[in-house]
Amino acid sequence: MMFRASVLTLYPEMFPGPLGASLAGRALGTAWSLETLFLRDFATGRHRAVDDTPAGGGPGMVMRADVLARAIDHAAPAGDQRPRLCMSPRGAPLTQGFVKELSAGPGAVILCGRFEGIDERLIAARGLREVSIGDYVLSGGELGAMVLLDAVVRLLPGVMGHEASGTEESFEDNLLEYPHYTRPQIFEDMPIPDVLVSGDHAKIAAWRRREAERLTRERRPDLWARRKPG
Amino acid sequence: MMFRASVLTLYPEMFPGPLGASLAGRALGTAWSLETLFLRDFATGRHRAVDDTPAGGGPGMVMRADVLARAIDHAAPAGDQRPRLCMSPRGAPLTQGFVKELSAGPGAVILCGRFEGIDERLIAARGLREVSIGDYVLSGGELGAMVLLDAVVRLLPGVMGHEASGTEESFEDNLLEYPHYTRPQIFEDMPIPDVLVSGDHAKIAAWRRREAERLTRERRPDLWARRKPG
Repeated sequence: MMFRASVLTLYPEMFPGPLGASLAGRALGTAWSLETLFLRDFATGRHRAVDDTPAGGGPGMVMRADVLARAIDHAAPAGDQRPRLCMSPRGAPLTQGFVKELSAGPGAVILCGRFEGIDERLIAARGLREVSIGDYVLSGGELGAMVLLDAVVRLLPGVMGHEASGTEESFEDNLLEYPHYTRPQIFEDMPIPDVLVSGDHAKIAAWRRREAERLTRERRPDLWARRKPG
Repeated sequence: MMFRASVLTLYPEMFPGPLGASLAGRALGTAWSLETLFLRDFATGRHRAVDDTPAGGGPGMVMRADVLARAIDHAAPAGDQRPRLCMSPRGAPLTQGFVKELSAGPGAVILCGRFEGIDERLIAARGLREVSIGDYVLSGGELGAMVLLDAVVRLLPGVMGHEASGTEESFEDNLLEYPHYTRPQIFEDMPIPDVLVSGDHAKIAAWRRREAERLTRERRPDLWARRKPG
């Protein structure tokens, strides 16, 4: 069963973009499919406006509920089981847990916000789950949708092959990854740490664990605090 | 003075990609420039390998310090004042404050990590600042670099015009944005809240503030806790 992504955007020409290359690109059409809907196609009137000025005043423009509702209802008619997401800095922060949950489902309908935001009534009426990829401001939701899809697609069956990812395991543990080294043995007078070339697997595992813990404590006290005891 | 971005990647064909459209695309060549360097061009040997197996064993491959050092030294010779960044889930979380700081500087040299990671000695020897766009795992650093650049470019002089962004102001306050509404006045039996069509600007401002505070408390207790008193 293919993971079906439908992306609603004012910039359909951005897709698949980076998702057409590398891991996600090779799996496009087999592990997952991508449908892009141009929001302006759902606008009416002479100017086919998707946005209008904010009620109550203020900067920028707001995306209209009626136009977006038509687009969502077209992309996901009654009975479509896929979660409906909306990329927005107001959303719940994207986590690897949610990525995993999405990757086990049938797909996602993703609305890319633009301008100041989206009419609140649309979010309520269509049950959109607002998702944020981080605490910074982007010019629109398109890059957020790509980030979310890239994270999801690499977890779909067959996409990464049988290779386990250390980064993944480390995130599930709420730890940052330990430092990596590879050939050459000496780089600008710096050797690979002795323990890693010792061949002693127990010592190597202990060293890596210690380093991961040290880095997490130093760089991400917030993650460190969320670690499960044990 | 143009903001100069140099991106080091195994997928140069991904760029400018989404950064070639919309706000960032229109400003490319005037407010900012983008140079893409293909890491494989700096590899040597018959296979031009950029990666090798991890010292000490484990899954995946590690990017070689010597190859990456040549690429960085080519992109940013001695005297280049631009910060050197590396997109990595181990990095410091990207914040709007750092985005703002970058946008006031001469540019950035951005290394896009792939595979399990990057040889630690390279990070130390070239003073790379590791940056993470969020706590999820991507197939590589390319989308992270695009997210960072999109966030920076929209803050460059002239890119957004004179329009203030409410989202921006709200983030600086550690508050999520208040709900937005626009025409039509009634959408699926839901009217725009009375206060927003009252014309009473003080009441509107107070309502928006209350709503922003309520949303932040409910959705992001972590942001709420970081608010400055007052």
